[in-house]
Amino acid sequence: MKIRYGGDYNPEQWPEEVWRRDYELFDAARIDTVTVGVFVWALTNPAEGVYDFTVLDRVVERAAAEGRSICLATGTGAHPPWLARAYPEVTRTDFEGRRHRFGQRHNSCPSSPAFQRLSAELARRVGRRYAGNPAVVAWHVGNEYGGACYCDRCGVAFRTWLRHKYTTLDALNAAWYTTFWSHRFTDWEEIEPPSALTEHWRGPDHTAFQGITLDYLRFMSDAMLANFRAEKAALRESGDLPVTTNFMGMYRPIDYHRWAADLDFVSWDNYPPDDTSQARMALAHDLMRGLKGGQPFWLMEQTPSYTASRDVNPLKRPGLLRLWSWQAVAHGADAVLYFQLRASRGACEKYHGAVIGHGDRADTRVFREVAELGAELARLGDATLGARTPARVALLFDWDSWWALELSDGPSRLVRYLDVVLSYHHALWDAGVDLDVVPVTADLTGYEVVVAPALHMVKGDLATRLEAVARRGGSVLSTFLSGRVDENDLAFPGDVPGPLAPLMGIRVDEWDARAADVVNPVRLGTDGLVVGSRLLFEIVVPDGAEVIGTYEADFYADTPAVTRHAFGAGHGWYVATGLDQTGVSWVVRQVLDRHGLTGPYADLADVETTVRVTPAGDHVRFLLNHRADPVEVTVVTGGTDLLTGAGVDSGQTVKLDRYGVLVLREAAAP
Amino acid sequence: MKIRYGGDYNPEQWPEEVWRRDYELFDAARIDTVTVGVFVWALTNPAEGVYDFTVLDRVVERAAAEGRSICLATGTGAHPPWLARAYPEVTRTDFEGRRHRFGQRHNSCPSSPAFQRLSAELARRVGRRYAGNPAVVAWHVGNEYGGACYCDRCGVAFRTWLRHKYTTLDALNAAWYTTFWSHRFTDWEEIEPPSALTEHWRGPDHTAFQGITLDYLRFMSDAMLANFRAEKAALRESGDLPVTTNFMGMYRPIDYHRWAADLDFVSWDNYPPDDTSQARMALAHDLMRGLKGGQPFWLMEQTPSYTASRDVNPLKRPGLLRLWSWQAVAHGADAVLYFQLRASRGACEKYHGAVIGHGDRADTRVFREVAELGAELARLGDATLGARTPARVALLFDWDSWWALELSDGPSRLVRYLDVVLSYHHALWDAGVDLDVVPVTADLTGYEVVVAPALHMVKGDLATRLEAVARRGGSVLSTFLSGRVDENDLAFPGDVPGPLAPLMGIRVDEWDARAADVVNPVRLGTDGLVVGSRLLFEIVVPDGAEVIGTYEADFYADTPAVTRHAFGAGHGWYVATGLDQTGVSWVVRQVLDRHGLTGPYADLADVETTVRVTPAGDHVRFLLNHRADPVEVTVVTGGTDLLTGAGVDSGQTVKLDRYGVLVLREAAAP
Amino acid sequence: MKIRYGGDYNPEQWPEEVWRRDYELFDAARIDTVTVGVFVWALTNPAEGVYDFTVLDRVVERAAAEGRSICLATGTGAHPPWLARAYPEVTRTDFEGRRHRFGQRHNSCPSSPAFQRLSAELARRVGRRYAGNPAVVAWHVGNEYGGACYCDRCGVAFRTWLRHKYTTLDALNAAWYTTFWSHRFTDWEEIEPPSALTEHWRGPDHTAFQGITLDYLRFMSDAMLANFRAEKAALRESGDLPVTTNFMGMYRPIDYHRWAADLDFVSWDNYPPDDTSQARMALAHDLMRGLKGGQPFWLMEQTPSYTASRDVNPLKRPGLLRLWSWQAVAHGADAVLYFQLRASRGACEKYHGAVIGHGDRADTRVFREVAELGAELARLGDATLGARTPARVALLFDWDSWWALELSDGPSRLVRYLDVVLSYHHALWDAGVDLDVVPVTADLTGYEVVVAPALHMVKGDLATRLEAVARRGGSVLSTFLSGRVDENDLAFPGDVPGPLAPLMGIRVDEWDARAADVVNPVRLGTDGLVVGSRLLFEIVVPDGAEVIGTYEADFYADTPAVTRHAFGAGHGWYVATGLDQTGVSWVVRQVLDRHGLTGPYADLADVETTVRVTPAGDHVRFLLNHRADPVEVTVVTGGTDLLTGAGVDSGQTVKLDRYGVLVLREAAAP
Repeated sequence: MKIRYGGDYNPEQWPEEVWRRDYELFDAARIDTVTVGVFVWALTNPAEGVYDFTVLDRVVERAAAEGRSICLATGTGAHPPWLARAYPEVTRTDFEGRRHRFGQRHNSCPSSPAFQRLSAELARRVGRRYAGNPAVVAWHVGNEYGGACYCDRCGVAFRTWLRHKYTTLDALNAAWYTTFWSHRFTDWEEIEPPSALTEHWRGPDHTAFQGITLDYLRFMSDAMLANFRAEKAALRESGDLPVTTNFMGMYRPIDYHRWAADLDFVSWDNYPPDDTSQARMALAHDLMRGLKGGQPFWLMEQTPSYTASRDVNPLKRPGLLRLWSWQAVAHGADAVLYFQLRASRGACEKYHGAVIGHGDRADTRVFREVAELGAELARLGDATLGARTPARVALLFDWDSWWALELSDGPSRLVRYLDVVLSYHHALWDAGVDLDVVPVTADLTGYEVVVAPALHMVKGDLATRLEAVARRGGSVLSTFLSGRVDENDLAFPGDVPGPLAPLMGIRVDEWDARAADVVNPVRLGTDGLVVGSRLLFEIVVPDGAEVIGTYEADFYADTPAVTRHAFGAGHGWYVATGLDQTGVSWVVRQVLDRHGLTGPYADLADVETTVRVTPAGDHVRFLLNHRADPVEVTVVTGGTDLLTGAGVDSGQTVKLDRYGVLVLREAAAP
Repeated sequence: MKIRYGGDYNPEQWPEEVWRRDYELFDAARIDTVTVGVFVWALTNPAEGVYDFTVLDRVVERAAAEGRSICLATGTGAHPPWLARAYPEVTRTDFEGRRHRFGQRHNSCPSSPAFQRLSAELARRVGRRYAGNPAVVAWHVGNEYGGACYCDRCGVAFRTWLRHKYTTLDALNAAWYTTFWSHRFTDWEEIEPPSALTEHWRGPDHTAFQGITLDYLRFMSDAMLANFRAEKAALRESGDLPVTTNFMGMYRPIDYHRWAADLDFVSWDNYPPDDTSQARMALAHDLMRGLKGGQPFWLMEQTPSYTASRDVNPLKRPGLLRLWSWQAVAHGADAVLYFQLRASRGACEKYHGAVIGHGDRADTRVFREVAELGAELARLGDATLGARTPARVALLFDWDSWWALELSDGPSRLVRYLDVVLSYHHALWDAGVDLDVVPVTADLTGYEVVVAPALHMVKGDLATRLEAVARRGGSVLSTFLSGRVDENDLAFPGDVPGPLAPLMGIRVDEWDARAADVVNPVRLGTDGLVVGSRLLFEIVVPDGAEVIGTYEADFYADTPAVTRHAFGAGHGWYVATGLDQTGVSWVVRQVLDRHGLTGPYADLADVETTVRVTPAGDHVRFLLNHRADPVEVTVVTGGTDLLTGAGVDSGQTVKLDRYGVLVLREAAAP
Repeated sequence: MKIRYGGDYNPEQWPEEVWRRDYELFDAARIDTVTVGVFVWALTNPAEGVYDFTVLDRVVERAAAEGRSICLATGTGAHPPWLARAYPEVTRTDFEGRRHRFGQRHNSCPSSPAFQRLSAELARRVGRRYAGNPAVVAWHVGNEYGGACYCDRCGVAFRTWLRHKYTTLDALNAAWYTTFWSHRFTDWEEIEPPSALTEHWRGPDHTAFQGITLDYLRFMSDAMLANFRAEKAALRESGDLPVTTNFMGMYRPIDYHRWAADLDFVSWDNYPPDDTSQARMALAHDLMRGLKGGQPFWLMEQTPSYTASRDVNPLKRPGLLRLWSWQAVAHGADAVLYFQLRASRGACEKYHGAVIGHGDRADTRVFREVAELGAELARLGDATLGARTPARVALLFDWDSWWALELSDGPSRLVRYLDVVLSYHHALWDAGVDLDVVPVTADLTGYEVVVAPALHMVKGDLATRLEAVARRGGSVLSTFLSGRVDENDLAFPGDVPGPLAPLMGIRVDEWDARAADVVNPVRLGTDGLVVGSRLLFEIVVPDGAEVIGTYEADFYADTPAVTRHAFGAGHGWYVATGLDQTGVSWVVRQVLDRHGLTGPYADLADVETTVRVTPAGDHVRFLLNHRADPVEVTVVTGGTDLLTGAGVDSGQTVKLDRYGVLVLREAAAP
């Protein structure tokens, strides 16, 4: 048992004589796992009622014969041309109201009966045919679920979903606030999908009625989940092999928290926007790990070199392939896979990087790095398999708040949910804290610190549970634009921040929004550190809270920008404006330091550390140098370097190369 | 009698028990007028043929019982869902050719028979039911008419409108110049609405045929006017209460000059784009006042704090609410109203500012400012009601020129009509001149100075009437891109500036257009002030005119950029290029000084002054400090401070606070 | 016989009494040729089956009577309203899937049977009626063919075109690589035009399948060519007058190389993007001349002053009209024509410049310059007619490479084909080299140097023919992103640059793409000139080639950026990155100098020289000063100044005025 290593493999695209060469190179790179069949619907089901597994059989047989594990896809990530022609309903209608015709991928309407029936049937047949093959270790349903459809069938399904949710039109009218602008619905049939033809005026985020748009996002996420469930159920008819689909990290259209329970394990595709996304990737990994309560996940896709779909597709610098793979493991991955093992010759991914390029060579830099990492993972063996992250800090992540905040008209379109979350996460990441990224429904009793940035929507008993954290001595940190709306996006009656107000000990009567280049200095703490703040400036009236930071400019100069409220044995912290990273980090450190949670390597910029605790109870510490130059690290807790087998003493100075990695089984918990 | 104070009030959105609190706060703020029912169609007419005034009755009864005046809307600003479902024709087809479905507001096709019939019927019933209620002081038809529809029914109506205008296809073909590009129409049915599917190539301003697009703009303005007239006629069946609809200032799609005669009084909604729009707002107020020959208007809407629909919605700084309200009064308003009295909890305006926020408080800064202004207006009483502005300067404003200039291909899309008008208005505003903003059809005999910036289209006998102004000793000032086209957007045969050429004493054979960053210095007058010019550079050949300013650069260096032509006892001034504000102000001051029209407080930057003359003949002078710091003003003509009752002597120095206001009944006309 | 002089003339737009004035002014300007009837379809064919040539007869008769030659259009550049109403099929469906209605121009679906039948019939009747008129010297079919249609009829025609090309679906599936993303077609009917509704995701360049999009571009170019051919065939029924249509230089949508054989002579419309486009225009002229193997062409359109369709339409500076006209002649034009002789009064070109403006004057600057050039051309007489360019350098220009490169996902959307071609052309132009711009199918045996920038697609035996150039001692220069794909846009298996690898003596395993502001310095040659490189950085492994330049930064510092490979008696040069102009020019000079091909006036910046060899064997040298200041030139080879008749000695210094021109019949070849 070891960390799985391999990736997407589409040998149906090239002649069988090439397969031999593929496996020679897989051997050279110690590739043990292949994801196959992701786009084979047209191949395995070339006409209605006709199923032809000849090629897939050969692919699977060859992989099995070569000793590889197979993650086998149902192949429904894109439908075949004949299906679109036979059932025009199967294509999507876009946000602009245009019924598409055959093309691209992610092209199936989730409400299409033909798609529902035939995708499940294909999954059923794939399950029946291959479930007994011991090489097949997991099912891969669909591919990167996403997008949306606005067709009339989705309209029908939406109304059904709404009836189920609201039961009565009165309830729906109240939730959507339809008295405004003469929108009171008197018949369910009057409700249309919210699109450029109905409620929207500039694009998907500009809606006249937040309520219907929010519900449509929830509905669409559920509609695709139903597609997933149908395929999973069909696969389950042939046994209990674990089922997954590949998620995409912080992907707005799908609320992965609504999906997580249905996956047997989480897998995801990591395509960071640039070379300096180390903190962002860490957040994404933690979010993915948090979907199923900390259970290890698969890194299903990453490129060994470049992407193809961006305007500019830079080359991954030497060493990053290794570093970022280890980062995934450091955050909970039990598999490290690439897209793709061999490059396509045609279509839109012909310039997407691959382990094996068009030149078919083993003597390229990229292949060498892949092979070296393969060897290294082999050396590590099972030392981290099944390990968990021992976090006492939770970061709340909430798709509903994301949606609600970004759908709102006012106060500022410039405030983006992810920007706020990323800046608080970055501060925690810098501090070297092990943290869980959890949904707002998570059990918070195990955490000492809960950070809830831009918690725009407060649902259910969340405020009570946050109060409980503080009451027992914990710290809860929230920010501007939190506590604004209920689950229907209705502004809370009463003072801002709504249900969070008692915990925060403040109220907010008004707020200022300014262009991106307007900075209001904020003075923090007794030492008077001055940092910048931007975009949104809530004007805070303390109601029990202590003032920790104040604005320095504008007519609200000297009013509170950061407050701390003693609540029970703990604290409620509130940051009323968009502090710059220095400011956010200062606040976060105040909180962590009170709980002694700042990590042992916190002072090394861009040296990331995480801990995983193995099923046997070992603490494995990862030290990742994201800098382009070497760094010296004084080891706090010594142990065994799992990649070299060497011993490392506490207090010893070790050198991490540019993009270097140290995986240390610590002698004892620190 | 006093200036009305209040705003939009939508109590149908919240429980009746809240209404009591509403009125408590209205009392505290001296709110005496409420606009109700703007979006109640779905409520009052919940199904075809069903009318239910229960809620509206209670709203009206309560308001009346509480002693408030009511501006009662017909409620047709947005149609209800059932109407769109029963009559799919009722929704609009957009510029892209897409038939919309139910959603948003401003969503009714003006040519829809169902909309026409049922909106008028609703107005009729509202009229019948409430005309007798003494609390109802005015009718409010629709809401912010605007937008456009391009459906086939509008196509039919457009052709009818065209037949009425042109009688023959030959006349239409000549007007539209259809010989160009093989467009000669041989059957009325061949004519389509000009849209992205027909004549347009980049957007609404990029048309292959200006003639059809111009006529469609006129038609669409008329089509909505017909909707307004139909509702007004239905209301009139129940008596002669004054009827209005809320305009939007300088709103391009609707030619308010074509509408003005049909309104009993003008009202408008003032949402300036930013905090430094004082001059722009002044222009908008004057334009609105000019619609009905100087008759006072209502400021129907303004926000007390923030808007919601913009990307960034800054908070109105403390004091601006008061200052800008007084500015409206200074320019002719007899009512000062807010949108909105209480904030919505849901949908796209939940973050739009309100007199009463979600917190329901009277102790907020915004509420305090609203209440203070209420008290102040009460103190003023009727001192300004019905007063008129004694202007001897006219600024021509012309929707046809606006449209024609911005629809044209060439010379430069960077020249925007409003920018030119705003810069000349700004110069007049700086000079403290009382001015009227009038249509090109206005009687000009009362004016000494007529400013006609970017008068692209010259219609009817306008040139003759402008010549008459100069002939009797007045000054006429026009600019580049004036006198170019006739009422059909056909270039005048002969020299530029067409019919204005005799008055201006110049001709223009060619012109240069340059990118926005190209500046040509212009030397002005005998002192040789050098200012910048941009965007368009007409090359002027004087034909009797005196050269006042010359270009300093490019191959046309030393040729005229500004000319003055002695014509009769007066002057024709021509500015051939886009002078910067300094240059425009210099030219405007030359003109005003000749007539002794520069105002008595002209040298105080950003201190605005206007005069209104009451029906009793009193001169009331407004002094408005738009600066964020205090300013000392030496009073030219003393009198009584109407807000304090104190006497002010001529020559006395008074201090205007930051955003301060002085309303002075002058002892005698200056 | 002399160079034709005149332009587009649309007298059907104005009253016949104006025509007299037109000809007075034509006389004054020595205008001898008029292009008439370009948009007269609605006039000559006002209803189905009705043909009325009354007006066109008068236009033609008058022109003939006035002694002018006529380039007579078939008038099918835009269809009339009645046609769109009678046959809705005739309008186009755009990329967004929207069927247009009547409007604009270039508005006919090339696959519409009605358009095909009636446009050919109109051409037939025009041919029959006017072929016998000796004043008619050429036919002008359609107008500026371009754009695209995506309607269902085009879909049908596309499938027919595909069947013809591929015969079997297997072949098509292989060419388009349809196994990727489940696209395997099993029925021809499943294939849809690639559009925003099918394969495209951001716009016309963002396709999921390059193969289908590339074929659609080829198909659409062929479909319009078929329209042209049909009209030409109809004209040919009445005799052998030469037939042309006006091209647009480097116009991406139409592969003029696929069209050239069908034109009897090439003509094109020159509307440079700005005032500093001298090199770009030179390239366009050479490209146009190269379409028919060097045969002289007509400059069919240019503006005497300004365009109208751009956001900003600057005035052509004095002298440029003359200079640019002579530039056309210098590159092979035997006709110099304007759009337009008299300005339209209405529609979207009313502000487009014209020889005769709305003012109807002969005393404008523009008219004076037109008339002076007319006189000058008359003085030149037939001295250059039929002359050819004696080039030993070829620049390859390839629409397929243009399309393939810009359709590709990855490596970088910032690399634009024309930018690369322009920079290499600019270096050649600076060097004063006479060059041919030729298709990749051209016979290369006559050239010593072949420059092939961004030769993304390598088709047929091209690589072999390039090798032959080098083998016999020539130099072949290519760049990054060359040799990547075959004619189906499939990546070559094996090393980059594919079939060019043996000639270049290198391989490329990986490449980096960076944002536009990232510059990697490149050190060139033994002297170590350091220049910048941007956008794309191929990492080169030499395989026989000599390193000429190296990167200076990033992890590939010191690896090759420019290489030269000795191949046979010649060289293969490879430039692996986007060098700045200095770098490109340095490399190009190395190549030219080896062959002694750098021109005699190469060191005078922005002084362009070309040579044309007359049928009698005379060398006519053009010296064009594109600078805004005068320049002194030492004449290398003396002769006769054809514009003045004066003799010029070798070694003599002559002064070229700002924008000055010297046309010198050289005493002997240099």
